[in-house]
Amino acid sequence: MKAARLHAYHEPLKLDEVGEPKATGPFDVVVRIGAAGLCRTDLHIQEGQWAEKSGVALPYTPGHENAGWVHEVGPAVTDVAVGDTVIVHPFISCGLCRPCRRGDDMHCLNGSFPGINRDGGFADFLHTSARSVVKLGEGLDPKDIAALADAGLTAIHAVKKAIPVLGAGTHVVVIGAGGLGHIGIQCLKAYTPAEIIVMDPSEPALALAGELGADHTVKVDGTQMDTVKELTDGFGAEAIIDFVGEKGAIEDGIAMVRDGGFYYVIGYGENINVPTIDVISREISFIGNLVGSYTDLNELMILTAQGKVSLHTTTYPLDAINDAMADLDGGRLQGRGILIPG
Amino acid sequence: MKAARLHAYHEPLKLDEVGEPKATGPFDVVVRIGAAGLCRTDLHIQEGQWAEKSGVALPYTPGHENAGWVHEVGPAVTDVAVGDTVIVHPFISCGLCRPCRRGDDMHCLNGSFPGINRDGGFADFLHTSARSVVKLGEGLDPKDIAALADAGLTAIHAVKKAIPVLGAGTHVVVIGAGGLGHIGIQCLKAYTPAEIIVMDPSEPALALAGELGADHTVKVDGTQMDTVKELTDGFGAEAIIDFVGEKGAIEDGIAMVRDGGFYYVIGYGENINVPTIDVISREISFIGNLVGSYTDLNELMILTAQGKVSLHTTTYPLDAINDAMADLDGGRLQGRGILIPG
Amino acid sequence: MKAARLHAYHEPLKLDEVGEPKATGPFDVVVRIGAAGLCRTDLHIQEGQWAEKSGVALPYTPGHENAGWVHEVGPAVTDVAVGDTVIVHPFISCGLCRPCRRGDDMHCLNGSFPGINRDGGFADFLHTSARSVVKLGEGLDPKDIAALADAGLTAIHAVKKAIPVLGAGTHVVVIGAGGLGHIGIQCLKAYTPAEIIVMDPSEPALALAGELGADHTVKVDGTQMDTVKELTDGFGAEAIIDFVGEKGAIEDGIAMVRDGGFYYVIGYGENINVPTIDVISREISFIGNLVGSYTDLNELMILTAQGKVSLHTTTYPLDAINDAMADLDGGRLQGRGILIPG
Amino acid sequence: MKAARLHAYHEPLKLDEVGEPKATGPFDVVVRIGAAGLCRTDLHIQEGQWAEKSGVALPYTPGHENAGWVHEVGPAVTDVAVGDTVIVHPFISCGLCRPCRRGDDMHCLNGSFPGINRDGGFADFLHTSARSVVKLGEGLDPKDIAALADAGLTAIHAVKKAIPVLGAGTHVVVIGAGGLGHIGIQCLKAYTPAEIIVMDPSEPALALAGELGADHTVKVDGTQMDTVKELTDGFGAEAIIDFVGEKGAIEDGIAMVRDGGFYYVIGYGENINVPTIDVISREISFIGNLVGSYTDLNELMILTAQGKVSLHTTTYPLDAINDAMADLDGGRLQGRGILIPG
Repeated sequence: MKAARLHAYHEPLKLDEVGEPKATGPFDVVVRIGAAGLCRTDLHIQEGQWAEKSGVALPYTPGHENAGWVHEVGPAVTDVAVGDTVIVHPFISCGLCRPCRRGDDMHCLNGSFPGINRDGGFADFLHTSARSVVKLGEGLDPKDIAALADAGLTAIHAVKKAIPVLGAGTHVVVIGAGGLGHIGIQCLKAYTPAEIIVMDPSEPALALAGELGADHTVKVDGTQMDTVKELTDGFGAEAIIDFVGEKGAIEDGIAMVRDGGFYYVIGYGENINVPTIDVISREISFIGNLVGSYTDLNELMILTAQGKVSLHTTTYPLDAINDAMADLDGGRLQGRGILIPG
Repeated sequence: MKAARLHAYHEPLKLDEVGEPKATGPFDVVVRIGAAGLCRTDLHIQEGQWAEKSGVALPYTPGHENAGWVHEVGPAVTDVAVGDTVIVHPFISCGLCRPCRRGDDMHCLNGSFPGINRDGGFADFLHTSARSVVKLGEGLDPKDIAALADAGLTAIHAVKKAIPVLGAGTHVVVIGAGGLGHIGIQCLKAYTPAEIIVMDPSEPALALAGELGADHTVKVDGTQMDTVKELTDGFGAEAIIDFVGEKGAIEDGIAMVRDGGFYYVIGYGENINVPTIDVISREISFIGNLVGSYTDLNELMILTAQGKVSLHTTTYPLDAINDAMADLDGGRLQGRGILIPG
Repeated sequence: MKAARLHAYHEPLKLDEVGEPKATGPFDVVVRIGAAGLCRTDLHIQEGQWAEKSGVALPYTPGHENAGWVHEVGPAVTDVAVGDTVIVHPFISCGLCRPCRRGDDMHCLNGSFPGINRDGGFADFLHTSARSVVKLGEGLDPKDIAALADAGLTAIHAVKKAIPVLGAGTHVVVIGAGGLGHIGIQCLKAYTPAEIIVMDPSEPALALAGELGADHTVKVDGTQMDTVKELTDGFGAEAIIDFVGEKGAIEDGIAMVRDGGFYYVIGYGENINVPTIDVISREISFIGNLVGSYTDLNELMILTAQGKVSLHTTTYPLDAINDAMADLDGGRLQGRGILIPG
Repeated sequence: MKAARLHAYHEPLKLDEVGEPKATGPFDVVVRIGAAGLCRTDLHIQEGQWAEKSGVALPYTPGHENAGWVHEVGPAVTDVAVGDTVIVHPFISCGLCRPCRRGDDMHCLNGSFPGINRDGGFADFLHTSARSVVKLGEGLDPKDIAALADAGLTAIHAVKKAIPVLGAGTHVVVIGAGGLGHIGIQCLKAYTPAEIIVMDPSEPALALAGELGADHTVKVDGTQMDTVKELTDGFGAEAIIDFVGEKGAIEDGIAMVRDGGFYYVIGYGENINVPTIDVISREISFIGNLVGSYTDLNELMILTAQGKVSLHTTTYPLDAINDAMADLDGGRLQGRGILIPG
């Protein structure tokens, strides 16, 4: 089969011919890729930022946002059958350790992460597990939902943590209305009655945010802090959901969170650097977020089937992977980029 | 009456003769001070660190950990009567704003803070409110419990937030076994089955921690990280409760928190400075804590009456206030320092 | 002033001339009634069902769903001023007992209930407290929102308890789309992504439910159980919110709740009678609900101001109170009945 | 192997020679039984009360509280190895359905229940799954802990639900200090600071309760209601944990629960029969409980290893099964009855 593989850091991916994966273990599932989302993390992988953390050996195949059709299953698989349309949870968890047994898949003690530390979905086929596939209902097409496997999953996971904070009369600031943020806005609308304020430097992103249900859109142009203070009667917002994490977002976010409020960290790149006297005198909290559980993904697919969440995408054929990555890096990609194997 | 007042930053307090406060408003309560706890924050006030935040005009009377007897009440006060023994919640809240109506006293929109931004308890009498006094049962003496009004309240507030994280089989690291920490340990024993690891550089503090129920005591001598890793099977602890917040405590704490875990910030002095990639890839959270609610104080007094929490103190007469502050600053004060008016 | 008073059980109310209440206590508030909602409980009061529970002495003035304008305030009132438009929380709580201090107003140890155990709002003026008034924003008219003070408050209180149960992909059955139910549906839409199934014997009530956002409406005609089972893939619903509590609703509700699910009891009149072997083998729970807190009412008024909740009402002049009660009793009243003093 | 099997309802079990189970599936585990607890449910099975619910075909082997040593494992089992000492979670869950994925094992959509609807542990060997075994640390002997697999698990599950209700200053009434109750008391001590009141008609049971940490023991002799009212200042208890569910326990429990409180249903046999007007005017709730999750069992085994929970038992050889059942039925069995295969 064809696979777009990274042979050396800082170099383009190469389209190689490699062997197809097989469902040899009892719970193995091989998925024929229908669509694979392109993520900013793929650029960071190419740049070598994850080399040490992942420990992956080159060459290998990135791609951690996958959907397609079940191609082969191991003998003990009961939740999907060959031919089913599926979205693939990005993590392979063991199902037997303590975190797995309470539904906390991402902290599995024996897991692996296709596309990060083993071969992922920029290929014709992907090797995964019965625990990582969510069967889709009629009418959901892989290319329309693949990016929910990571971008969407991360957004719903953070939003679900914020539910107890976001009653009627509260405000939430969404920093960044891009690939993750535009799904986050839809999840906030589905789960909470909070007033949603969206910040972004891009006018088209803010226009999309407004269409998706943002109550207020605020351009990041140096005046955003004053606008948010005014929209929140000078108090700031009960929750900040930061999908950016760099270029001033963190400083803005800390200044905008209301005393007693919560800052949800999703975007990454810089440091949180805050005096502890502010943390305690304002009683503010910072909440980390790592992708999401299988249950989170299941809920997100239901919201999608109900029409409460939809994705904005641009598609490329798999062999145009390096063009897609260049477009993402250059800020020319509208919505989430999606790769379609030949 | 006598009051120990601050006339200038960086100078000793002076024992002045001033007018007694009166219960003029409907909910006013005047408390005859039986004991007032001395806090490291009082040193920071003297050093001018709170000058701008509090906006207090000099001279004024510090002292925010107070207990005593009700001396005079306003006409609408129904919860206490003259002569009752009381501990004084450190904050005066309005009872009518949104935070007050959901029990979140510390975030009252109209509150004031005796000892911080108005006259406090280093005096014969204190002016406070019906909403700030907890009536004590038989057998509780002001000098034995005054320090629970702030040090103890802050500790129980943080511990209560950590309850959902601390099931059987979890670990909690308590950083600092001093005035707050030794109460935190007792609260953890009362509320959770977690295994308690206490870190401190002082041998006597660790010995006290062991007597109070710590499962493991770890000396801060450079090897503490290895010891904690070993005690937690290499994973770190589900919760870090940091009563220190400086001198390496924060870096240690972040390294010791388990993936998916929580870091409770109480001690202050330095910065949290952490890469967001660590916050998200490890999914760790930082929780701010600001004193505690009236309900928290009520619960703490019940635990004290039941013998589940007890304080270790050293007493001084009020007119030895500057000696007491020097002892605290010089590390010569064992347990919490308590001032007793004439 | 005029007041519609009950002089004897089982007899019509009489329109009496009585003295106006005065704001004599520090936190007293006198409200000029703009509108008072009529509740089925008022019929039960007339029938004597509450005589023993309330212990009220006749004659007295019913009316526990009130809104209007502040007419007079006691000297310590700071949250409202004369002339403000307000809705009146139905309970007068003390603000000092343990339940009050954690925001649990309805379980105040020193409270009273105008319209139930002291004079209520079927009159020109009502005596209440600073703790019981919510100031309304521009554009909210007492006659449009009075019924939210009890009917709406009870509905939002139950819905808020159900939030943790109602994630994406869950079902909730609302039994009864009348005065409380039609607000409950709107609250469910605002707070949760659950699929909403509404049951009622009345076609117009179901039509209204559909307009307000019910995903499925089911006529109570003997086939309702089969329909609900089908809509829930045979499993039943994660939550039943029962605004009826009689005429077969309870038996239906228990049969329709999914294993592990929750039944919220709001309507009353008959008994829950269920074998404990079913409670444990199906792990089902029954949750009581009593009106709601001041915070709940505050949130409801915000949802109303945002246009997320609206009421359907029929108005009567106060002196037509007995006609209104007869219409309610006879099933001729569309939406909630509202009394307007002359 | 030997197995004690039920051939006909209302007749004694017979000790049969049957084939040994084999680990044929990938996740199969065969456990050599070290000890099997005897439960009142086994009497109910013999009496035919579960015949219709379970649908089991006779003859079959009861026994759902099992511990022993791993004898054989399927090829995909990674969490235990042959020779490990294990306790067996009573339910076999699939690990792939929605309830399993969020850690709610007991509501697995594809589960089975050895000892209830398939062969259980009154035998030399038991067929179970990798998902149902908890590996035990050094020093835990099957005969000392087998009864924790169901009796203990049910108790800890209910106690964990009650944690948010049971802060300092609250009361909990434990009805029944028998097989489940005496473990419930120990779990309450480990997880909460609540004041524990234990009710039982048996003096020795109350004496044991006192040794295990009950703050008050109350004999069920007709005066128990007055005693509990007095112990709770006339308000009743925030939580009732009812391990009996018959012979007046339910009526007592409802009368003793504080307004706003919770009644945890565990024991079964009669009906809850309560007017809905009481449920709403007192805002009381009834919480069902069904055994517990794998995580619950894991936590219980940790508490046991830490010495915070211990069991009181009487042992019988497996071939004395009918004597043991007669002793249990006749009230002659002290603590939990444990069967030991030859």
